[in-house]
Amino acid sequence: MLVVMGIDPGVANTGFGVVRLAGTQMSAIDGGVIEAPGDEPPERRLARIHASLAELVEWHDPAAVALEDVYFGRNVRSAIGVGQARGVAMLAAADRGIPCFDYTPQAVKMAVCGSGAAAKDQVQRMVGSLLSLPEPPRSDHAADALAVAICHASHGPQQRGRGRFAKVAAATVTAQLPEAEAG
Amino acid sequence: MLVVMGIDPGVANTGFGVVRLAGTQMSAIDGGVIEAPGDEPPERRLARIHASLAELVEWHDPAAVALEDVYFGRNVRSAIGVGQARGVAMLAAADRGIPCFDYTPQAVKMAVCGSGAAAKDQVQRMVGSLLSLPEPPRSDHAADALAVAICHASHGPQQRGRGRFAKVAAATVTAQLPEAEAG
Repeated sequence: MLVVMGIDPGVANTGFGVVRLAGTQMSAIDGGVIEAPGDEPPERRLARIHASLAELVEWHDPAAVALEDVYFGRNVRSAIGVGQARGVAMLAAADRGIPCFDYTPQAVKMAVCGSGAAAKDQVQRMVGSLLSLPEPPRSDHAADALAVAICHASHGPQQRGRGRFAKVAAATVTAQLPEAEAG
Repeated sequence: MLVVMGIDPGVANTGFGVVRLAGTQMSAIDGGVIEAPGDEPPERRLARIHASLAELVEWHDPAAVALEDVYFGRNVRSAIGVGQARGVAMLAAADRGIPCFDYTPQAVKMAVCGSGAAAKDQVQRMVGSLLSLPEPPRSDHAADALAVAICHASHGPQQRGRGRFAKVAAATVTAQLPEAEAG
């Protein structure tokens, strides 16, 4: 049995979706949206997103976290914002030793719909159908997160790559001040 | 007395610099570079950067963390990477209730050199001079981090804006699966 959590990180809305693969049977365990209040400064919104994801990761204990790689159709400012949300999402996984995997939008569409050029509503319908949901997920963000989780789960064990890792130590910190006081 | 930590986040090298303002006298308390090993996957590098910054933030307990806003001269892919590092840096501050402040490169140069168009080596020399260091910081990343900390510290108390906040709770999580099993 394999449990994969997909995450669709965003500044305001972060989608998540948890998929279980048992044999060849895929099912949805959880899915939804994390909303960070728009009236708060960015660092507090990031702390909320991180806290929510850390709880979800602890609860579901997935073998892997999958994220969609989104580079195109974004300007640099919005890319920084999405990157910040991605950073705290990846940290929520890494702090529990869970590896993260990136998939291009094309790879996700290919895995879910059999075509890298599938339309958004087609992806949503196929997510509902593959996971035997009575209807497609209500939220785009949850559907996108489930889609990238399906993409990872549909890869063979070899392609799925690296497994869990032990807790990561701090990085190498080198003091660089010529005459720093004892800090 | 005011203690400010500047951070220059990066995928491989993250600069940090801690500045103390006592009266009108500024001095450097600490500064250096956090190096994340290049042979590790992104989520582990982010976990290391976060762990190192969390230790530094706990140790120095700054009143504020200052970061340079960098939008120009970057492509979207590199912006996502820098954004990820920024995200875990901001989280290290937010998890201790420390507010984060962004400054444009122009504002940093203006604060350090008196001109928004100052050259990079001029900024480094002025950082060394303003902080009474015997020579400029050896690392560009540490110098950039000290420069943005100086920029924040040189603002008046009014302009410095919001203060510490209480621990942030998780965001609002809304389940979105039509027939989700109990998750």
